Amino acid sequence: MSATTPDGRLGRVAVVGAGLAGSLLAVLLGRRGFAVDVFERRGDPRAGGEAEGRSINLGISARGIRALRAVGLWDGMAPSLVPMRGRVIHQPGAPLRFQPYGTRPEEILHSIRRNELNAVLVDRAEKEPAVRFHFGWRGSELDRDGGRLTLTKPGTGERRTVEADLIIGADGAFSEVRQLMHRGLPVNYRQDFLDWGYRELTIRSNPDGSARTPIEALHVWPSRRGLVVAHPNTDNSLTCTVLLPHHDDPQRPDQPSFDSLTTEAAVASFFATEFGDLPELVPDLADQYFAHPVSQLVTIRTAPWHHRDRVVLVGDACHAIYPFYGQGMNSAFEDCLVLDDCLARYGVSETALATYQQSRKPHTDVLADLATDNFIELRDRVRNPLHMLRAQADLALHRLAPQLWQPLYRMVSHTAIPYADALRRAQRQDRLLTWGAAAATVGTALVARAAWRRRRG
Amino acid sequence: MSATTPDGRLGRVAVVGAGLAGSLLAVLLGRRGFAVDVFERRGDPRAGGEAEGRSINLGISARGIRALRAVGLWDGMAPSLVPMRGRVIHQPGAPLRFQPYGTRPEEILHSIRRNELNAVLVDRAEKEPAVRFHFGWRGSELDRDGGRLTLTKPGTGERRTVEADLIIGADGAFSEVRQLMHRGLPVNYRQDFLDWGYRELTIRSNPDGSARTPIEALHVWPSRRGLVVAHPNTDNSLTCTVLLPHHDDPQRPDQPSFDSLTTEAAVASFFATEFGDLPELVPDLADQYFAHPVSQLVTIRTAPWHHRDRVVLVGDACHAIYPFYGQGMNSAFEDCLVLDDCLARYGVSETALATYQQSRKPHTDVLADLATDNFIELRDRVRNPLHMLRAQADLALHRLAPQLWQPLYRMVSHTAIPYADALRRAQRQDRLLTWGAAAATVGTALVARAAWRRRRG
Repeated sequence: MSATTPDGRLGRVAVVGAGLAGSLLAVLLGRRGFAVDVFERRGDPRAGGEAEGRSINLGISARGIRALRAVGLWDGMAPSLVPMRGRVIHQPGAPLRFQPYGTRPEEILHSIRRNELNAVLVDRAEKEPAVRFHFGWRGSELDRDGGRLTLTKPGTGERRTVEADLIIGADGAFSEVRQLMHRGLPVNYRQDFLDWGYRELTIRSNPDGSARTPIEALHVWPSRRGLVVAHPNTDNSLTCTVLLPHHDDPQRPDQPSFDSLTTEAAVASFFATEFGDLPELVPDLADQYFAHPVSQLVTIRTAPWHHRDRVVLVGDACHAIYPFYGQGMNSAFEDCLVLDDCLARYGVSETALATYQQSRKPHTDVLADLATDNFIELRDRVRNPLHMLRAQADLALHRLAPQLWQPLYRMVSHTAIPYADALRRAQRQDRLLTWGAAAATVGTALVARAAWRRRRG
Repeated sequence: MSATTPDGRLGRVAVVGAGLAGSLLAVLLGRRGFAVDVFERRGDPRAGGEAEGRSINLGISARGIRALRAVGLWDGMAPSLVPMRGRVIHQPGAPLRFQPYGTRPEEILHSIRRNELNAVLVDRAEKEPAVRFHFGWRGSELDRDGGRLTLTKPGTGERRTVEADLIIGADGAFSEVRQLMHRGLPVNYRQDFLDWGYRELTIRSNPDGSARTPIEALHVWPSRRGLVVAHPNTDNSLTCTVLLPHHDDPQRPDQPSFDSLTTEAAVASFFATEFGDLPELVPDLADQYFAHPVSQLVTIRTAPWHHRDRVVLVGDACHAIYPFYGQGMNSAFEDCLVLDDCLARYGVSETALATYQQSRKPHTDVLADLATDNFIELRDRVRNPLHMLRAQADLALHRLAPQLWQPLYRMVSHTAIPYADALRRAQRQDRLLTWGAAAATVGTALVARAAWRRRRG
């Protein structure tokens, strides 16, 4: 057991952030024998109410399932989940099109509300005797070398300082721990806001409780001028995310933005033109549209992820990504498993934290690019017949040789192959497919010539 | 004239930073009729003393000369300058090698001390009746919509608030104006610290005042394990920049770092092995080495560069780059000319500031990449005979067809061709050269075959 410090004392861990990664880490480290205090600036997720701006539903895939299984959670969770067996594509004037997520029954995603998953994890963590949660506290000062963290209770002016062998920043894209840990140091840091933002809409269930559109799928309304994605909920409603540019672009006068769609008439007309059946599914579309705020999407890349043997970051705090590959939570959970494993192997040490960063960062860097690219995939490529033909060839080859040929989407969503390895393999397959197509073309030409010669001769 | 606000009042400009870009802008805008107040947190550069950590000499090239000429300064400056006609490459056991910077007498760089150029610019700016400098003040609060800037005098607690139609952040890579302008907004921002840092050394002149090594050149000591670059000064001394990794890399045990070179013996032995004649040129090398701090190098990329029609950034504040292409000051001066031009065309307006950013950012983005790449050029490629052959082919083609063929270095340093255009053109030339080499190879083979057939026939 390694939950002790070099002098044999039980290790104390302070986790900032009781979101998905923070709560999962609390379970893992509590189970390893660390005394874990978790500080969260919001209230207890079990008290209900969605966290502001973070209520997008999540799609749990293989990596997330693996982590939840590791803490004994997955098997009882079915009532909170809606299986998503593939994408349903909605296009004006066309029948619904279904694209399965895989070739096997288990190759599906599972939709869950962020808040519900969070509550399950906090409940599970509290079963560990050495784990305590403290809601309503935010990190405000950090002695990064001495392992002292000062917390304040917003509104009340209350302050407390805790000492810990390890301080973990699991406090999201705008992590206070990261800022305090990096302050004044020559760190690499990059934040990229997408020039598109989102607003939420809800497709309610029918009065009889049934769903208005097939429920066991992710729904996508792709369009040249916008994108809507919808996740199913257990009550047969769906939560839609409407993506549009924040601002007008003088170069593209036909592209509306959240800035320019300011009247009910403009909203109604735009949605009717671009998103076919959506206005029927959301009869009070304009009301909902104007009732919800516009949210931002950001990618964060940074290094280092740790300060010596004292402070370390997980999840969005060190690699926030756009949501378009559905891998944010899944990759944050992987961080937790790897960090837990490094601490088990090396104890609370610089080696443990450096090994954790080295094991994860190359992969989350690749994931950030994949997530950015998948925005284009969802918005533009799912409408492109040539691109869909290419995707079908990929799936057909996978069916022929499941071990030898794996589509990128499958490796990312249905396996735990590290992201960078998955990308390298997919790029190799792409090259093979290109060569194969070239060879097939030449082959066809040779056969045609031979046939022509035979006929002539 | 456009130095008036829409209501006809004379425009007031507050510039934060009286460095190179801030002082040049003060001249340009003062001349256009704006009332310009320049606030600088350090003391007056004319009071002497190098600014801490910024004393690297500068290489003025075509873009910088153009800007200085625009304010009537270049012609009188010869006494402050040392012409650098090319690079002198020092390698252990080899004679000095000279690589000219161009093919014509005017295609040279000019070395100057940053502080000296700064003093010349402040002097020039004070000749404009509407320009006033305020030293010892730093920006501490900004009302970015209202155009109010609060300044404090460190140490004294004095505060003042100024109102301006336009507030300009010319306050360097860690710009306070940028931070205040961007605070809480969804901006893109990226900082990359080079994992190599630098320490300064001085090659003094001989006791008779003569130079110890050819003075009219940039000196380079390239090595697989380090890099030294030296700029000449008017007193026949040279200022060296010793570049090494900050930290040890367990993967490269033979690579020393500033962390590991901690004894006089280690320093002496490393410099003798890697940098041939440098220990002779700097007899008190170890003393100097330990007397100077290690400095960081950073690249900053960000957007937007402005807030509405009220606040705008120039130079390092919006695009700090590594110094390896010698274009930091030159590109900052270009910013000033373009911003001045946009303000002349559109008045103090969002259009002016947006046009300025659109005109400059694509080019400074490319420059950031070029400057990063040139570190590898200076350290590794100048030692590579194949690479040098390629550079000579480039120069030879330029001599044959000066208009049609221009080496990238020439376009960047000896012309005002925008950086991104220069890079595109160089890439086209590279492709042509590759095709040309392929064609030449095939041509030679055909001629050889024809000759062989003739001989046989």
